[in-house]
Amino acid sequence: MTDTPIQDLYEDDYSHCYGCGRLNEHGLRIKTRWDGRESVSEFEPQPYHMAVPGYVYGGLIASLVDCHGTATAAAAASEAHGVDLRQERPLRFVTASLQVDYLRPTPQGVPLTLRGRIKDLGERRVTVEVSLFADGEEKVRGRVVAARMPERMKQ
Amino acid sequence: MTDTPIQDLYEDDYSHCYGCGRLNEHGLRIKTRWDGRESVSEFEPQPYHMAVPGYVYGGLIASLVDCHGTATAAAAASEAHGVDLRQERPLRFVTASLQVDYLRPTPQGVPLTLRGRIKDLGERRVTVEVSLFADGEEKVRGRVVAARMPERMKQ
Repeated sequence: MTDTPIQDLYEDDYSHCYGCGRLNEHGLRIKTRWDGRESVSEFEPQPYHMAVPGYVYGGLIASLVDCHGTATAAAAASEAHGVDLRQERPLRFVTASLQVDYLRPTPQGVPLTLRGRIKDLGERRVTVEVSLFADGEEKVRGRVVAARMPERMKQ
Repeated sequence: MTDTPIQDLYEDDYSHCYGCGRLNEHGLRIKTRWDGRESVSEFEPQPYHMAVPGYVYGGLIASLVDCHGTATAAAAASEAHGVDLRQERPLRFVTASLQVDYLRPTPQGVPLTLRGRIKDLGERRVTVEVSLFADGEEKVRGRVVAARMPERMKQ
């Protein structure tokens, strides 16, 4: 497992993401760790991140799946390209598509755990499957297709 | 077009949603209007709702698609069931699944317009297609499968 979250290895220019940027003071600061096989993220929603009282808002869950998925793609693709994350910056990805299946309602007031695995690792695109657990049960399953960041989006 | 946004017709108990609840003071307050054929929502992201500087965060976009989709489902299903939205509360839906395709990056600093149409209207499930436009161009396409709110989630 990487000691440092993948998102904290992004260059400063790419660290303003509302979902996971360490430099976005309003953001969610999602943190993904990667052990070479699986990625893990823990998140505790705020009380106001609700859909109806007692249950977590689906759009927040989509955000968790999104940033956890792209970070997992960045970690796995960097590894595959021989990038040493202890010394070098990870390759950067953006979301091409996001699929989220809400299997059952996600309860508020408990920590959420996201686990990601690589489904397909291509030259420009990486597909990641993400499961969200609460109270030890899978509540949500997602799939992120992440694409290498286009040159025109770079600063 | 309904004068009152669909979300503002929800009962108080269901108006705390982070995405669209009129009673959630921290939330996005997404507002959907419906003309019997198409739904429309306008939204201006905050400067901190960014992915990288210059572009809107994909998780925020997923939230817009989500709440706009479920409100569209509520409006269309209510109409189909003979609910008069000028006097009665709409039927309530939750998100069963959400698909978001990011066709091209969505620029910051311009208003976003979401347009929704019913793809399938079943007894318990409604499928809504949503397109997000910025600068007159479709940037994102989404699909929401909305399900009638289960009894156990009601207060």
